[in-house]
Amino acid sequence: MTDLASQLSLDHGGKILLAVLDGIGDLPIDDFGGLTPLEKAETPNLDKLTKTGALGQQLPVGRGITPGSGPGHLALFGYDPVKFLVGRGALAALGIGFELKHGDLAARINFCTLDKDGVILDRRAGRIPTELCEELVLSLKKITIPEVEVFVEPVKEHRACVIFRAPALSDAVHDTDPGLVGEKPLSVVSTGAGAEYAVKIVKEFIKQASAILKDKKPANGLLLRGFALHEDFPSLSELYKLNPAAVALYPMYRGVASLAGMEQFESNPADLTGEVQAAKNALKSGKDFVFFHHKYTDSSGEDGDHNRKVAEIEKFDKIIPSLMECGFDVICVTGDHSTPCPMKLHSWHPVPVLIHGGPQRTGWSDRYTEREAAAGALGTFHGYELMSLLLAAAGRLAKFGA
Amino acid sequence: MTDLASQLSLDHGGKILLAVLDGIGDLPIDDFGGLTPLEKAETPNLDKLTKTGALGQQLPVGRGITPGSGPGHLALFGYDPVKFLVGRGALAALGIGFELKHGDLAARINFCTLDKDGVILDRRAGRIPTELCEELVLSLKKITIPEVEVFVEPVKEHRACVIFRAPALSDAVHDTDPGLVGEKPLSVVSTGAGAEYAVKIVKEFIKQASAILKDKKPANGLLLRGFALHEDFPSLSELYKLNPAAVALYPMYRGVASLAGMEQFESNPADLTGEVQAAKNALKSGKDFVFFHHKYTDSSGEDGDHNRKVAEIEKFDKIIPSLMECGFDVICVTGDHSTPCPMKLHSWHPVPVLIHGGPQRTGWSDRYTEREAAAGALGTFHGYELMSLLLAAAGRLAKFGA
Repeated sequence: MTDLASQLSLDHGGKILLAVLDGIGDLPIDDFGGLTPLEKAETPNLDKLTKTGALGQQLPVGRGITPGSGPGHLALFGYDPVKFLVGRGALAALGIGFELKHGDLAARINFCTLDKDGVILDRRAGRIPTELCEELVLSLKKITIPEVEVFVEPVKEHRACVIFRAPALSDAVHDTDPGLVGEKPLSVVSTGAGAEYAVKIVKEFIKQASAILKDKKPANGLLLRGFALHEDFPSLSELYKLNPAAVALYPMYRGVASLAGMEQFESNPADLTGEVQAAKNALKSGKDFVFFHHKYTDSSGEDGDHNRKVAEIEKFDKIIPSLMECGFDVICVTGDHSTPCPMKLHSWHPVPVLIHGGPQRTGWSDRYTEREAAAGALGTFHGYELMSLLLAAAGRLAKFGA
Repeated sequence: MTDLASQLSLDHGGKILLAVLDGIGDLPIDDFGGLTPLEKAETPNLDKLTKTGALGQQLPVGRGITPGSGPGHLALFGYDPVKFLVGRGALAALGIGFELKHGDLAARINFCTLDKDGVILDRRAGRIPTELCEELVLSLKKITIPEVEVFVEPVKEHRACVIFRAPALSDAVHDTDPGLVGEKPLSVVSTGAGAEYAVKIVKEFIKQASAILKDKKPANGLLLRGFALHEDFPSLSELYKLNPAAVALYPMYRGVASLAGMEQFESNPADLTGEVQAAKNALKSGKDFVFFHHKYTDSSGEDGDHNRKVAEIEKFDKIIPSLMECGFDVICVTGDHSTPCPMKLHSWHPVPVLIHGGPQRTGWSDRYTEREAAAGALGTFHGYELMSLLLAAAGRLAKFGA
């Protein structure tokens, strides 16, 4: 379906806003008498959009499948997340703004604490401060491996990442992190054919890194995981003839947006009002597709704080009038997955979708809620099918066949 | 999607009951003022499960496609029934407890009555008693074919089955049963390439069998149908890290359960109360997935007896409290297909699904009926997607991607 939408896409038409309320879908909350946060929240602006738009619900990956943020967002951008895989290592690198090239092998680093026998005492080295992480990374930058470019970059606290750049790498490399304390880091082994060279490089990196770290405190070791070979994705410009922009505060979402070839627009201040301004700037500079990310509906869900989730929904509701004024022709509100407060986790439950603008079967729904979305005019569909609906609403898809 | 669920499945989590009310879906019944048997039945326990669970409906194979019992059940066990094919012959053999090996060719036998010219007078030889069937089978056990192991086994009344064991067999062999009286049995022909050897073996079997049977009464001939090569299925243990059990009274359902690698638990007495006890025993012995089969909702549908179907639904409803006490974390109630009383046949109509347990969008539905299921929180999905939903509800699926 996405291939077809790609073939039919036009290089002109309306401007699209994709507003992602991260983790928006939820479950009935006892404290709310069985209402979900969306049902509980006062959302006069979303209500108005709903009445003059259309609702549906999307399955980010598939029934019963709980998506990580990567697959959840890729689906919204029109990529089938089961075909377009992106590893944690690559996402981490993209998230800190490192420009991955086709064929780069990325992995996450955890600095850890080892005892004198090399057994893991703390997989996170007591969550060292980010400054110490940066120091350690600086010391690791001395590592050289012949014919390989090695990049080590700090992320946050005990987390960093490493990128190997060389021809013919493979990511069939097993994590060295055993996932628990009381064991030694695993030795580097391949998980599939053709990874001999990658394994050799990673072994050499660990050997040199271990020598550099061995007398440091409290982080005297490192664990690698999430090996991921970066393969260039076709951009939204190549796929759908869009000129796309991203407005997101957090590295992870900026990272996944850059995979899709979106240009980042900075938010000043770093809050929803700043994000609205950034969206406006994106349109002014000629962008016709803006991915707009609101993080805190997810964070409050992960914390199990349903009152805060309601507040975050209401905060988003308040900026809708100013978003409307930016000049978008089509506005979509959805999430990358559900993060139900009772679970404090991402979940597999379908995510409500609102599309406003373009020709829609309006008047079917009154409020943007899970329940109304399930009975909405757009029906239930796969996350990666959303892009076709948005392009169609914006008049950016030609007819198929004569 | 099932591949993905397989990749993501965990070896721990909640215990799942899959209760299959065979042929449960139905159509409006005039005698009931347009209600279906599910709508007509008094089901206080199902109602309670529904209010605190979630409904949806599943398509066992696809829209408009009427499933046999094999595909209907395989879908519920998480196998795409269009990919995992199992022939009637193989099912019949499995159903009587014959342990099929990879590569075995199985077929169903009907003992029949032929006139002196070899024309079929009765395709079922007057439904001979099972004892006579066993005698005939005993006489056929003398058949020998060089380099082939031949197994002939009685099933019930005029029905038996034959299994050929040899290397490189094929099931591209046409039925010899013309499906009507007044014709001779068809000669053995292949329906595809590479079946020459199988055809030769089957011809030899029929030649010897005909000679043995020719003077018997009333069954002096035999018809073969449903040739099926048995290929090992990946078990539910391999696919989803489950330790599965089956509680079913009828051979067919035991057979399809054994395809999925389920261990059988015996019901004493052979009724619903015995089945509950068997389910309890399965859990006690460490099983974490129990397939629980209730046959008579289907039989009453096939007989067009809507009052009996209502009674069978109510019988199942009565055992729900004792099923709940077994200690399952997730309880699913569904069917393998619809068997509408007005049709007296299997049909393609979607089958209502109830899932109770795990995080669900509860409070959307009041009664387990076709109509409410179509508007339920789980939506409409393929039968083979049910397993993902059950595993997710039981906390047995990891997140996809980071």
